[in-house]
Amino acid sequence: MIKVGIVGGTGYTGVELLRILVNHPDVQLHVITSRSEEGMRVDEMFPNLRGHTDLQFSVPDAAVLGECDVVFFATPHGVAHALAEEILNTGARVIDLSADFRIQDVPTWEKWYGQPHGAPGILPQAVYGLPEVNRDAIREARLIAVPGCYPTSVQLGYIPLLEKGLLADQMLIADCKSGVSGAGRGAKVGSLLCETSESMSAYAVAGHRHLPEIRQGLSRAAGGKDVALTFVPHLTPMIRGIHSTLYAHLPDADISELQAMFEARYADEPFVDVMPLGSHPATRSVKGSNTCRLALHYHADTGQLIILSVIDNLVKGASGQAIQNMNIMFGLDEEAGLRQVALMP
Amino acid sequence: MIKVGIVGGTGYTGVELLRILVNHPDVQLHVITSRSEEGMRVDEMFPNLRGHTDLQFSVPDAAVLGECDVVFFATPHGVAHALAEEILNTGARVIDLSADFRIQDVPTWEKWYGQPHGAPGILPQAVYGLPEVNRDAIREARLIAVPGCYPTSVQLGYIPLLEKGLLADQMLIADCKSGVSGAGRGAKVGSLLCETSESMSAYAVAGHRHLPEIRQGLSRAAGGKDVALTFVPHLTPMIRGIHSTLYAHLPDADISELQAMFEARYADEPFVDVMPLGSHPATRSVKGSNTCRLALHYHADTGQLIILSVIDNLVKGASGQAIQNMNIMFGLDEEAGLRQVALMP
Amino acid sequence: MIKVGIVGGTGYTGVELLRILVNHPDVQLHVITSRSEEGMRVDEMFPNLRGHTDLQFSVPDAAVLGECDVVFFATPHGVAHALAEEILNTGARVIDLSADFRIQDVPTWEKWYGQPHGAPGILPQAVYGLPEVNRDAIREARLIAVPGCYPTSVQLGYIPLLEKGLLADQMLIADCKSGVSGAGRGAKVGSLLCETSESMSAYAVAGHRHLPEIRQGLSRAAGGKDVALTFVPHLTPMIRGIHSTLYAHLPDADISELQAMFEARYADEPFVDVMPLGSHPATRSVKGSNTCRLALHYHADTGQLIILSVIDNLVKGASGQAIQNMNIMFGLDEEAGLRQVALMP
Amino acid sequence: MIKVGIVGGTGYTGVELLRILVNHPDVQLHVITSRSEEGMRVDEMFPNLRGHTDLQFSVPDAAVLGECDVVFFATPHGVAHALAEEILNTGARVIDLSADFRIQDVPTWEKWYGQPHGAPGILPQAVYGLPEVNRDAIREARLIAVPGCYPTSVQLGYIPLLEKGLLADQMLIADCKSGVSGAGRGAKVGSLLCETSESMSAYAVAGHRHLPEIRQGLSRAAGGKDVALTFVPHLTPMIRGIHSTLYAHLPDADISELQAMFEARYADEPFVDVMPLGSHPATRSVKGSNTCRLALHYHADTGQLIILSVIDNLVKGASGQAIQNMNIMFGLDEEAGLRQVALMP
Repeated sequence: MIKVGIVGGTGYTGVELLRILVNHPDVQLHVITSRSEEGMRVDEMFPNLRGHTDLQFSVPDAAVLGECDVVFFATPHGVAHALAEEILNTGARVIDLSADFRIQDVPTWEKWYGQPHGAPGILPQAVYGLPEVNRDAIREARLIAVPGCYPTSVQLGYIPLLEKGLLADQMLIADCKSGVSGAGRGAKVGSLLCETSESMSAYAVAGHRHLPEIRQGLSRAAGGKDVALTFVPHLTPMIRGIHSTLYAHLPDADISELQAMFEARYADEPFVDVMPLGSHPATRSVKGSNTCRLALHYHADTGQLIILSVIDNLVKGASGQAIQNMNIMFGLDEEAGLRQVALMP
Repeated sequence: MIKVGIVGGTGYTGVELLRILVNHPDVQLHVITSRSEEGMRVDEMFPNLRGHTDLQFSVPDAAVLGECDVVFFATPHGVAHALAEEILNTGARVIDLSADFRIQDVPTWEKWYGQPHGAPGILPQAVYGLPEVNRDAIREARLIAVPGCYPTSVQLGYIPLLEKGLLADQMLIADCKSGVSGAGRGAKVGSLLCETSESMSAYAVAGHRHLPEIRQGLSRAAGGKDVALTFVPHLTPMIRGIHSTLYAHLPDADISELQAMFEARYADEPFVDVMPLGSHPATRSVKGSNTCRLALHYHADTGQLIILSVIDNLVKGASGQAIQNMNIMFGLDEEAGLRQVALMP
Repeated sequence: MIKVGIVGGTGYTGVELLRILVNHPDVQLHVITSRSEEGMRVDEMFPNLRGHTDLQFSVPDAAVLGECDVVFFATPHGVAHALAEEILNTGARVIDLSADFRIQDVPTWEKWYGQPHGAPGILPQAVYGLPEVNRDAIREARLIAVPGCYPTSVQLGYIPLLEKGLLADQMLIADCKSGVSGAGRGAKVGSLLCETSESMSAYAVAGHRHLPEIRQGLSRAAGGKDVALTFVPHLTPMIRGIHSTLYAHLPDADISELQAMFEARYADEPFVDVMPLGSHPATRSVKGSNTCRLALHYHADTGQLIILSVIDNLVKGASGQAIQNMNIMFGLDEEAGLRQVALMP
Repeated sequence: MIKVGIVGGTGYTGVELLRILVNHPDVQLHVITSRSEEGMRVDEMFPNLRGHTDLQFSVPDAAVLGECDVVFFATPHGVAHALAEEILNTGARVIDLSADFRIQDVPTWEKWYGQPHGAPGILPQAVYGLPEVNRDAIREARLIAVPGCYPTSVQLGYIPLLEKGLLADQMLIADCKSGVSGAGRGAKVGSLLCETSESMSAYAVAGHRHLPEIRQGLSRAAGGKDVALTFVPHLTPMIRGIHSTLYAHLPDADISELQAMFEARYADEPFVDVMPLGSHPATRSVKGSNTCRLALHYHADTGQLIILSVIDNLVKGASGQAIQNMNIMFGLDEEAGLRQVALMP
């Protein structure tokens, strides 16, 4: 059994880790921390867990966390930097769901997150935890940076093309729609039901923190070439789900070949589903599951390729992907604990 | 492995059976029928099942269904009557999620469902599949009538009191709120998002078909005494969930004793959770799970007891409970396939 | 033109006052206050008002407010007490949407609101602003306590019976369902979309602050007799609307007579709609309008009367009713500014 | 008073016409037709209209409709063709909310709508009812084709640029998100709450009927030049609202100039609101109102211009715009009946 600790378990990615881990066949939950809720039973805050765990929140303590085989960070950015290093020193491994280790370029991170990077020393050993790209490195990793939700959905949609050298020198456009859980469990007016329900709007059009992460990933797929991207996120009146509509201009393409290329690229991937050409994946088809579904459309008259990519932002976009990383790191069945079918309706 | 067939798999209880059964450790799905969708892959209609099953819908055929160990009916009322008998004759067992075998009194059934009863001959062997009441009979049953969604939530809330002889001679009031999935997947104007979202209303106040079923169950719990009940269902703007607010007048009661009585009554029940006194269970705490959560409140000044009861209408109120019955009938772990944690948020 | 001031315009009842008043033919908006948002344009916070007003929030100032003919308080409880008295002294009238002057019994108010009453001196002159009961007193009033949302919907449903001396000595039950806007625009975790959407739960079952207000109103209608009431509020996943399901036991009643009694009682009321017997009013039929719709149902076999009552909690349950009071106080057409049809769908 | 008739009043655009017209100061509702609901009171189907109209549905009769000054068609495509001509012959004017007269090229219409055009003879006199473009022609028109919902939001966003000769020879991308009411009030599985709520998906990516209409409008604005457009519509889990995210590549542009150009273009338009640079208009800010709000964003590093455009699809995208046309045609105040503030929250 893998002994697991969770730092910062009171947010949505925290409870989602718990939802999956309490039924994971190879995991034993050892400790979960929250400074503000010390002593409270986890299932008092999250009654869906009643009958599944007796854990209580405790104050984070590197020694206790160090008793674990692996520690998940489900914390706001900036928190994992210091503590992760301490925990790594005990020999435990770290899977960070925050943005703290996603961007390898320190100045870029500091510019977008508006604070000094707290752990540049260990940053080089952080592996970007997108299994479809980095599985081998994940296997050996001791520190994982779990990709963001938007970056996961956008990268999985574009990389089959970029890896083949297509899409050179064009402006890609990613029009992304996210459920409100992406904004977290913080008490903000902007996340109230009365502010978000029955409404649609773009936000952060001037620049969203996931943009540099996406560009870093796309450039890697393109063999290091810079990739120009316009990224517009939208707040959608639902709890879970990201729908990315990805545009690329590929005049005179053979869409059957592109479809075959996508199918081949993801043939062995347990959590990427390339749907039949012309499908319209709905976010509800992945609600609560770790799957990313992709579908291609092609307008022959204009040469426009449209890639539709859906994930559950809390699962493949966060906690499920984190556990997929754990499974790989510890040599477990990669699908262990992650076989749940999406809840539909 | 238990060989399973499903008749009528295109509705919400059908896809919910599939969602649970594809991950059930002891089940092999053998056949699923739909006259209208013959030949269509199940995962084409329900893309959440992609990667989980290769089944196609076929026309119902008693011989093929008879090869199963158990056949679930997820059909509108009136359909199971004839076919169930044929299947029982092959030796297979039947678990009917419709209303066809829930009411033992034929004239009552005919009055409320507006048609002749199609299988009065096998009705006496039908066991009402509420495990918390009938577990022993279920074990031996060959034909199960799975309780309705409202009846499950109301009965579990009242029976601890009725079994103790409390609540005699009073008018009970069950004010129940259901998500829209209770109305099924039929194309009806009244179930459109634009008709049901952002709105709350009562319906069928003059008389709902679940009333006689509830009264039958409450009377059994009261040792055969008639129980007077006012039942008002409401359509709530959400997909899943039933919240029953149950009223009973018990002047001078000792609420700690009542709480203890509930806890004792359900101490060994894997799917009934008696929450601490004064809790407010939310339907989302059971979304996608087979649990019924109960909580008691008492107004000492007026002698009013309020019992709050929540279930997921598609799980404990339908498909989950059906599978719980199957587990009991076949001597499996009663929780097999049903350990999913509710999806929250 | 009536010169109007608004104290505390940043919440939902504040913006709702503005939505109605900017199109009111007899009103000139003079000032709107908010300490926290001083200097901000109102339409910057509420873009639906762009093009309808140039007002800016200012710090509350009794002298400026005193220049108005009437000042609305759309503040949390406790705020209006002190300032209202100052404003009344300038000669302006006050319409308070908070709970500060709703309850005439000071100790009761202090018990439920957990603080000393700040204006017992002017409390006796406060008129409870339910036009259907107090129209004559409202006409002469200088200080109006606008009823709460639940109290409006419950009282309008029960008073035709209570005024006729029916319902004596029984326990009434009001099972009420409210949209989330009833919880206000405060940044609270419990009001987030991800906490309230796709879920139903009761809350404050142990005792809600609207209970004493409702009982005060029902007792007045009953000629001063105490009325026993069980009141259970529920949080419903929608923005606006209250649906009250009201129970009363009236064996051997003639439902046609009761229906006629309701129709007669409200025949001249512009904002109460008694629907045909057996109707199921939906909250969406009053969304954005000042109407309360009522419908009666009777179960002859059990003698149970069920009264369904729906309002928009922000209109007839708050700001619309406040403006209806203003219209009456100033001798305007009672419907002025309030003829909007509900937004459906 | 303008005498008004409505053909096909049982859908969402029909009830929305009624919602606005019952409070229009210059309108008298004369007749509303529905074959299927003949004899039913309009307010029985749409209870929000109780107290606002006594109209009943009647069978369409050209003679009765001919008594009107103007007849609105709120019918599915194909219905208005024949009847419109008859009505025009009586001297009444026609405002058609369907697609029947929107596209001037008959073969294009026939290709996209899959049936022969039923009224090519009167098509040339049809004026495309986008007041911001065609106000003078509308004034003289006897037959108006009210623009579609998507086309309204997309055209208003792009035309200030196209009219100035910008955007030449590039592929424009319109990523549009619509509420479910855009799919109408028909009983379709795909419009059920349980199918659309808590989900996001694209649809009709292969080609949506609004594409040729949008291209026709954009080409007119560009002085007749063909405009290449990729248009991807999405079904969004809300009742009302369209959010169009419009992309254009304009390297080295001066965003202040573009902003000024938009402000100048719409300075005199009562229903187009150019928000401050960098705003994020939300659809809820126009819910129930006839306003289109626009906002510009510019990424200087990539030369990408993003135009955000929101409308209420049932108001500015259908019934409100139809009434705006009527106001212009009859020399009324263009804003008559259309001053409602959006319902927020």
